[in-house]
Amino acid sequence: MTRWLEQQAAVRERRGLVRTPSTRGADERAIDLASNDYLGLAQDPRLAEAASAAAHQWGTGSASSRLVAGTTELHVELERELAALIGIEAGLVFSSGYLANLGITTALGGPGTLIVADEHCHASLIDGFRLSRSAVETFAHNDVAEADRLLRRRSQPRALIAVESIYSVGGDSAPLGELLVLAEEHDAVLLVDEAHSVGVAGTGTQLGYGSVAGTALAGHPGVVITATLSKALGSQGGAVLGSALLREHLVNRARSFIFDTALAPPAAAAALAAVGIIRQEPWRAQAVHHHAARLAEHLNLDPSAGAVQSLRMSSPETAVAASRAAAAAGLRIGCFRPPSVPDGISRLRLTARADLTDADLDHACAVLRDILERTP
Amino acid sequence: MTRWLEQQAAVRERRGLVRTPSTRGADERAIDLASNDYLGLAQDPRLAEAASAAAHQWGTGSASSRLVAGTTELHVELERELAALIGIEAGLVFSSGYLANLGITTALGGPGTLIVADEHCHASLIDGFRLSRSAVETFAHNDVAEADRLLRRRSQPRALIAVESIYSVGGDSAPLGELLVLAEEHDAVLLVDEAHSVGVAGTGTQLGYGSVAGTALAGHPGVVITATLSKALGSQGGAVLGSALLREHLVNRARSFIFDTALAPPAAAAALAAVGIIRQEPWRAQAVHHHAARLAEHLNLDPSAGAVQSLRMSSPETAVAASRAAAAAGLRIGCFRPPSVPDGISRLRLTARADLTDADLDHACAVLRDILERTP
Repeated sequence: MTRWLEQQAAVRERRGLVRTPSTRGADERAIDLASNDYLGLAQDPRLAEAASAAAHQWGTGSASSRLVAGTTELHVELERELAALIGIEAGLVFSSGYLANLGITTALGGPGTLIVADEHCHASLIDGFRLSRSAVETFAHNDVAEADRLLRRRSQPRALIAVESIYSVGGDSAPLGELLVLAEEHDAVLLVDEAHSVGVAGTGTQLGYGSVAGTALAGHPGVVITATLSKALGSQGGAVLGSALLREHLVNRARSFIFDTALAPPAAAAALAAVGIIRQEPWRAQAVHHHAARLAEHLNLDPSAGAVQSLRMSSPETAVAASRAAAAAGLRIGCFRPPSVPDGISRLRLTARADLTDADLDHACAVLRDILERTP
Repeated sequence: MTRWLEQQAAVRERRGLVRTPSTRGADERAIDLASNDYLGLAQDPRLAEAASAAAHQWGTGSASSRLVAGTTELHVELERELAALIGIEAGLVFSSGYLANLGITTALGGPGTLIVADEHCHASLIDGFRLSRSAVETFAHNDVAEADRLLRRRSQPRALIAVESIYSVGGDSAPLGELLVLAEEHDAVLLVDEAHSVGVAGTGTQLGYGSVAGTALAGHPGVVITATLSKALGSQGGAVLGSALLREHLVNRARSFIFDTALAPPAAAAALAAVGIIRQEPWRAQAVHHHAARLAEHLNLDPSAGAVQSLRMSSPETAVAASRAAAAAGLRIGCFRPPSVPDGISRLRLTARADLTDADLDHACAVLRDILERTP
């Protein structure tokens, strides 16, 4: 094994694709434009109090799978509140968003299912497609006409259309209305990953409830939602939202639910507190959009659908150099290289977090403009 | 979708395989012989304090993947302490044990790898094998000679032998010494899932450090360990332990590491506290073995290798009936039916947890003897 691992490491080195996590200290004071803590809730004392109370009341771990003894009143309440926020009948919580996506795709997929997926779908969805043994076809990003062509020539009795409401790396949104029409025409399930949308997207009084809430998709029997608790909700875990019948199907069939220890009570409690804050403090989602517009304006970018601004770079090396220069100027930004980008294009990724101050934003824009001007 | 889901539900009903999680209240006072909280640490106030402090200091969530901004000093310290406990160079923490098993199998597997796996391997390993696109062969439970035959006729340049040191449902152990000899003979990697062993197994002054600690496997360049933080360690998450070179490979190649939000700080802190307690309080692992022996004696079972006692039942229905009768008598026990059993045999599963009192054990044995006498 050692020799093979050394060869693999040498190849990465040659291609400029070595990754090393940098370790964050407790006293780090960089301006955070890298994380997915869109609403600034991961550090909110109310979430910390909720997690602390749950650790003392329910324990620091759930100690078994959900089906054996791991389902507490806390898990059930969180599922109810998540479903209510989005306007869907039922929810099922997993210990990560990755496992939620594996769970729904394997439980609905199989040899009798054609999965038609946007090419920008997240790795966890792609892994789920493969695990499910479904036939899989990919359509060009947001190309509903191509998805239609793929569905028209299907031979499988069932079909699943898989998209994200806001894409994690590009930051743009899916045409959900058109996709729903397509799903209805083909009697297909529409699976919408709301990982980067819950807490951020939405309209009117439901701003922050996600892209599906308040639309024809919410509660539609052919629509299934996945969400994460680890981004805007400031915690850890994932969820699938759909009908009660679908929930029961997952409880019985999703291996990543059945064979996994239940989400830890502190994480469930923190996410539950976050759902309440999303309802009570709409200013947070508003601030995300305000900050995103400001970043776009100052850096001459197209406005993004949610919190994520995406800047294409000419190579992995220029992306790394730019993110290092930003770090040296007190700015933590995302640096995405293959294989973490859906189209092979390296990028910087900026998140317009709700709790950035005007001074943070001004400083960030000045630093980034300067770096981009000096970047080939 | 609705019609298909209804059909699936009807099939489950007919086969007696419907699962429904029962919800645990905060004031439940049943004697717990069902969970994997082997050392009684999930409810330990020291773990709760550690989780609470981490929630306030580091946040309730890690807010991004490990590679973007999710690696804190806490994650690094936990990895160091886990590796030191087992006597291995390096560790890498995942947000669940399921994802740790997916990560190592996909990062080491592939079309050039033959995976030779014990038929009792956990679902997360089996899913990882499939995801990895490796060739997979299964050998009869603990049949080293059959594993040898499978390895002898391989055509792939690389091979991986996958086992669990203590099996989750049967409760028995793997012949690790023989398997190491086999791995060396075939230049194969030996992957040992220590999920049910860390905290419980071990010898002499290293009791509780797991089945690998203090043996020729610890630190061997051809051996890789996976572990969970959600069983004896009373928290949530998983880990892979191996060489620093292997760790770097996983950081760069394991999709379930790269594309997943980092383990939440409260979970990392609770697991770290648990590692310290395993070192300081060997009485806990001793108590597990003492309680397991007592259960085995009173119920006329073979002694188990760790905390898990497995009782074969004649059908899914008798297993369910027995576990319901136990619940009515104040005893929570595990009930495992297909597809959660590796051999299709339904079982009751009893865990000899460290913090059961003598009175708990006496009551449990009396109740279970009575139920088993009345069970066909």
